[in-house]
Amino acid sequence: MVLATTDPTSRLAASASLEDLETPCLVLDADRMDRNVLRLRSRLDAMGVSLRPHLKTAKSIEVARRVMTSPEGPATVSTLKEAEQFAAAGVRDMIYAVGIAPAKLERVAELRASGVDLVVTLDTVQQARAVAEASRRAGTRIPAMIEIDCDGHRSGVRATDQAQLVEIGRALTADGELRGVLTHAGDSYNGGSIEALRRYAETERLAVVDAARILDAAGLPCPVVSVGSTPTAHHATDLAGVTEVRAGVFVFFDLVMAGLGICQIDDIALSVLATIIGHQREKGWIITDGGWMSLSRDRGTGKQAVDQGYGLVCDVDGTPYHDIIVSDANQEHGIIAVRPGSNARLPDLAVGERVRILPNHACATAAQHETYHVVRGRSHVIETRWTRFGGW
Amino acid sequence: MVLATTDPTSRLAASASLEDLETPCLVLDADRMDRNVLRLRSRLDAMGVSLRPHLKTAKSIEVARRVMTSPEGPATVSTLKEAEQFAAAGVRDMIYAVGIAPAKLERVAELRASGVDLVVTLDTVQQARAVAEASRRAGTRIPAMIEIDCDGHRSGVRATDQAQLVEIGRALTADGELRGVLTHAGDSYNGGSIEALRRYAETERLAVVDAARILDAAGLPCPVVSVGSTPTAHHATDLAGVTEVRAGVFVFFDLVMAGLGICQIDDIALSVLATIIGHQREKGWIITDGGWMSLSRDRGTGKQAVDQGYGLVCDVDGTPYHDIIVSDANQEHGIIAVRPGSNARLPDLAVGERVRILPNHACATAAQHETYHVVRGRSHVIETRWTRFGGW
Repeated sequence: MVLATTDPTSRLAASASLEDLETPCLVLDADRMDRNVLRLRSRLDAMGVSLRPHLKTAKSIEVARRVMTSPEGPATVSTLKEAEQFAAAGVRDMIYAVGIAPAKLERVAELRASGVDLVVTLDTVQQARAVAEASRRAGTRIPAMIEIDCDGHRSGVRATDQAQLVEIGRALTADGELRGVLTHAGDSYNGGSIEALRRYAETERLAVVDAARILDAAGLPCPVVSVGSTPTAHHATDLAGVTEVRAGVFVFFDLVMAGLGICQIDDIALSVLATIIGHQREKGWIITDGGWMSLSRDRGTGKQAVDQGYGLVCDVDGTPYHDIIVSDANQEHGIIAVRPGSNARLPDLAVGERVRILPNHACATAAQHETYHVVRGRSHVIETRWTRFGGW
Repeated sequence: MVLATTDPTSRLAASASLEDLETPCLVLDADRMDRNVLRLRSRLDAMGVSLRPHLKTAKSIEVARRVMTSPEGPATVSTLKEAEQFAAAGVRDMIYAVGIAPAKLERVAELRASGVDLVVTLDTVQQARAVAEASRRAGTRIPAMIEIDCDGHRSGVRATDQAQLVEIGRALTADGELRGVLTHAGDSYNGGSIEALRRYAETERLAVVDAARILDAAGLPCPVVSVGSTPTAHHATDLAGVTEVRAGVFVFFDLVMAGLGICQIDDIALSVLATIIGHQREKGWIITDGGWMSLSRDRGTGKQAVDQGYGLVCDVDGTPYHDIIVSDANQEHGIIAVRPGSNARLPDLAVGERVRILPNHACATAAQHETYHVVRGRSHVIETRWTRFGGW
């Protein structure tokens, strides 16, 4: 594969390696990514359920193409910017899985008019009426998923709230389209045993299957029954009645997922390359140029059994140092230290040497960067670079 | 002032108001910003010390021009990307205030060759030798500040470590240039009484004044003696021996600074505009499209007396609701609730209505956005838009 050369300001030569990159920057191990994608795809194939990957983690057309089951989708997005960017790259089947603000329906209608089957999400009668109204204005039926609250963690109608469900469905079908029901087991991020993760998955499944049955009984059929979270996607044992699974972070994985036991540390495909810029030897600190601007402020492992600080430190090959973490971070400074309570020895790293830092939360860390520098396994060669986008 | 129209994809009309913006987005109250800038400038003018504003908070040429005392600087930057962007806009006097990685010296030399007085920062003999070596290669003397550790919070040489200081100074002056000494009272962010803040400022001052004296006595003169942090800049009572003050967040202020008593809530110039997208009424939650992607993961007030969650909620005019905060956030969802322990009532906000959220940490929140939408005071009119940049 040839090196992307779309960035005229780049100093990266065709034969660039990790040693040539400006730091801090984002490194993606495509071998690990491919393995992660294959793992979830194989699992869902065996269960006969389709995968609608959430592209909010990657926000990259090149990653999306490797994660989706076809160049046209299906896919899930978290912003209309993602929908527009992926539509421009040929994706034709997307659910925008954040509750729709009525003012955004004009952009939705425009995307649909361009041939994209973009579906919105909602959980109130007011939104359903706005969708019906926007559909009338646009002279088309805008499809929507009703969001179901399976565990009380965020948005959605409870499946037990039958009257509310049916009222939303009726308001929607006046001039819009009821495409289906959707839920997200956000509580599964609290983890627990394999049994607990299976229970989260079953709770998630039952919530949407029940909701679809209620709507169906009211003459409001639900063709799409959608569940999704990386922990439940990897632990569901029964997906009867479910038509698709959404998941996002499974592509890269991260320390939060490893802490939950959903992956191993060496499945984590994303890291931040940083350079040593100093030491405070009496304190046992190594200072790097990888601060929170490159790692993100996410401290997701802070509530887990093993707190990884702002990230777990690896050598340039990607092999973790035993018990060495980014213990604190300023905007452009990272402080590397031995994990509290450990007897590990700080590695002997001189000013100018490089490390790779595994992120707490792939979605948050990737969002701090504009480019994936793609390597494979322990190779230092930058095989290619993929652009990512942000914004709304 | 006319509306910037450089973005061809924009849907923003010439007469745009807060109601027309796509949400979430970043709003900057230029009246508050101007007042904040004037406040610190007047203070330092009265003390006879120059201001070298840290542009890492704003990362915007338009903001920089309103903060710097001249279009050419002086200024402080946290990345070479900032140095390059501001150099392209005419800034000629900058300190890159993060310890230099030797591999970055080539970019530094190139910027200097283009006529920019870019000064690097270091705290090891190894870096000083790298600067001398890069100076020899470039046929010029690259100037450097020696970073002094005034409070043990991060990088720097202790002023008491005289031998180390002099060794660094000598290594540097071999072929480079010793421009001065620099420190940052990071511990001042822990706050306390006015007396405590004054003590942080005095500790900061003494550290660099002592270091400069030691170097001077060794025949290594230090023309620049630089201190800086927003809390100490606003509380120093004596700046004898100091030639300049660096500070960054004073331009916008934020909830962390308000929590420390450095500013009032209504001095905070930055907010995130978000739209209501749902409710969980039994729980007392209002859901918005302002999640952590737009607010950042920064929870800086979590350690303060008043925990502001992911931000303090205001109406569209910018007036805070009493005790209403963003209590939790997902990537593109914010959960608004009454502050724990308060008897306040949740405001009656319908789906589609808008709120403005004051950030914990202006540097982190601004970094999640590409554009400042500029308003003045309680006006809803978007006076102009200013682009910001990220990356390294």
